[in-house]
Amino acid sequence: MPDQSWIAVDAMGGDEGLTVMLAGVAQARRRHEGLKFLLVGDETAIAEGLKRHPNLTANSEIVHAAEVIGGGDKPSQALRRAKRTSMGVAIDLVKKGRAGAAVSSGNTGAMMAMAKLALRMLPGIDRPALAAPLPTLGANDVVVLDLGANAECDARNLVQFAVMGAAFARIIFELDSPRVALLNIGSEAQKGTDEIREAAAVLREARLPMTFTGFVEGDKLARGDHDVIVCDGFAGNIALKTAEGTARFVADLLRRAFTSSVRSKLGFLISRPATELLREHLDPNNHNGAVFLGLNGVVVKSHGGATASGVATAIGNAARLVRADLTRRIADDLGHFQTAAA
Amino acid sequence: MPDQSWIAVDAMGGDEGLTVMLAGVAQARRRHEGLKFLLVGDETAIAEGLKRHPNLTANSEIVHAAEVIGGGDKPSQALRRAKRTSMGVAIDLVKKGRAGAAVSSGNTGAMMAMAKLALRMLPGIDRPALAAPLPTLGANDVVVLDLGANAECDARNLVQFAVMGAAFARIIFELDSPRVALLNIGSEAQKGTDEIREAAAVLREARLPMTFTGFVEGDKLARGDHDVIVCDGFAGNIALKTAEGTARFVADLLRRAFTSSVRSKLGFLISRPATELLREHLDPNNHNGAVFLGLNGVVVKSHGGATASGVATAIGNAARLVRADLTRRIADDLGHFQTAAA
Repeated sequence: MPDQSWIAVDAMGGDEGLTVMLAGVAQARRRHEGLKFLLVGDETAIAEGLKRHPNLTANSEIVHAAEVIGGGDKPSQALRRAKRTSMGVAIDLVKKGRAGAAVSSGNTGAMMAMAKLALRMLPGIDRPALAAPLPTLGANDVVVLDLGANAECDARNLVQFAVMGAAFARIIFELDSPRVALLNIGSEAQKGTDEIREAAAVLREARLPMTFTGFVEGDKLARGDHDVIVCDGFAGNIALKTAEGTARFVADLLRRAFTSSVRSKLGFLISRPATELLREHLDPNNHNGAVFLGLNGVVVKSHGGATASGVATAIGNAARLVRADLTRRIADDLGHFQTAAA
Repeated sequence: MPDQSWIAVDAMGGDEGLTVMLAGVAQARRRHEGLKFLLVGDETAIAEGLKRHPNLTANSEIVHAAEVIGGGDKPSQALRRAKRTSMGVAIDLVKKGRAGAAVSSGNTGAMMAMAKLALRMLPGIDRPALAAPLPTLGANDVVVLDLGANAECDARNLVQFAVMGAAFARIIFELDSPRVALLNIGSEAQKGTDEIREAAAVLREARLPMTFTGFVEGDKLARGDHDVIVCDGFAGNIALKTAEGTARFVADLLRRAFTSSVRSKLGFLISRPATELLREHLDPNNHNGAVFLGLNGVVVKSHGGATASGVATAIGNAARLVRADLTRRIADDLGHFQTAAA
């Protein structure tokens, strides 16, 4: 049983590196009482960085790792030197039971490879999936998975993702029977690839605490009609990034519109409190922290470009999933599913 | 040689049917001098509808077709009764040389199947692709293809789409060497599926009037860094619809924000001229008209829910592509490409 109050943080990963990571950990400490942190990376640099966060010292320990995984490193290269890297050591601390979860803003592919090798998959899972909640117009966010860990998936993978996504949604949204849909290019039964149609056939018969709602198209992701949306990592990555890019595009156009005349600038200033709320709702840092589901342990991927506040959100999510016993609950659901299928 | 001044319009297809289609044709007539229309569908209903558009009568002829393709009809069903349907007859008028292009707001799958069978593919093309220009922050829109006609594609298909997309971009954006990228889940060379990596290898060596810019991710579609983005129909459909859905989502959130207080309402009213410009820039009706590329003839798919103004935009695009000799120019490019490859 891992020590649930400790979170292992890869202090060196991410586009901004140590400074932002430590500031994020410090924010997480203030937001969540009782959390403790294993700060993994270059000992000297972390000790130096901690001087700016004196309140963090009492709640953290430094674990030395000399190397850092680069953003362009291939998973195979990363694996070979895993045990010397801040990311690899952070994941290893979960394996050894010294931490309840590992959090990193580093290279996703390397993280997936290391986490698979160190923690192994839950029984009944062929591949882990990367899942994250995205904003909607509805009462809760929607969990989308896989977001890019597996570019190609068969029907069996998709069904496993649905089971894991539903377990995840039950925990983070506190729902009894989440509405689960498959992402597709049409809502009619004959649409899409063989893999998607086969997965739909299995999910329609599955007796699990979820409501299978069929196919959903890309334009309805954010409507709040579904709690979990399942797809292969290629489609999930395209959908996630297109949504991010489009939100930014519309915001850029709005900015141009609002600064196009004195009159529109004035209107913008008057409406500012309302648009600030909107900005906060859409800020990816408030939704940061994708989770690798299907592993023997909680591993959270923070966005490479996350701010300190985003890092704190990811750490908060990791802590919550540890406390909610994510790993055991997914394993239980998989057990029920296999019993039902047999 | 088809009669380039005539456009065959499926007057019955689309969610709104005849009334919107005729109003769209009437707008197209006002926008584009010299166009003439073959209005295909129920003779009596069209004649009755034309009473509202007296100026259209001199520039149009009715071509009778008794049946209409439904939105839920499978392509195979549609093909069997093609010659009795308004969509099938409109496409057949292009085949017979009586019209330069066919335009329909009906069922995409049926349209693709009918167009392939009636018009056949250009030499060197295995499958047609659905292409459309989408708005960007740059100087011109970006052509994205395939948008859903082919859910699964091999490297050869993707390369053909790139050649056709570049020819299309040269015409509609008046560029000499369009920047062409492949949609992928990362920008590094090892990312994505085998099909995408193979297509990239071919395009890197292709000697064509285009600049191959490598891989582009979903968040950078609208930045204006590329003129053509190539993907399989599954990814293209997900990207297009996610972009549409996200733009609508942000607009809905904005509306909520602007009506959340008297103060923000006031600011909104003052800024209104600016936000109206933005609305116009994002209105899908101003970007309506996806084109099936790779056929012996111009076939344009208008959005099922297009307004009269959207239908007029699609007809205008069709007319422009006919005048620009789209089919011959794509065939020429394919010829050069095959010569270079041999």
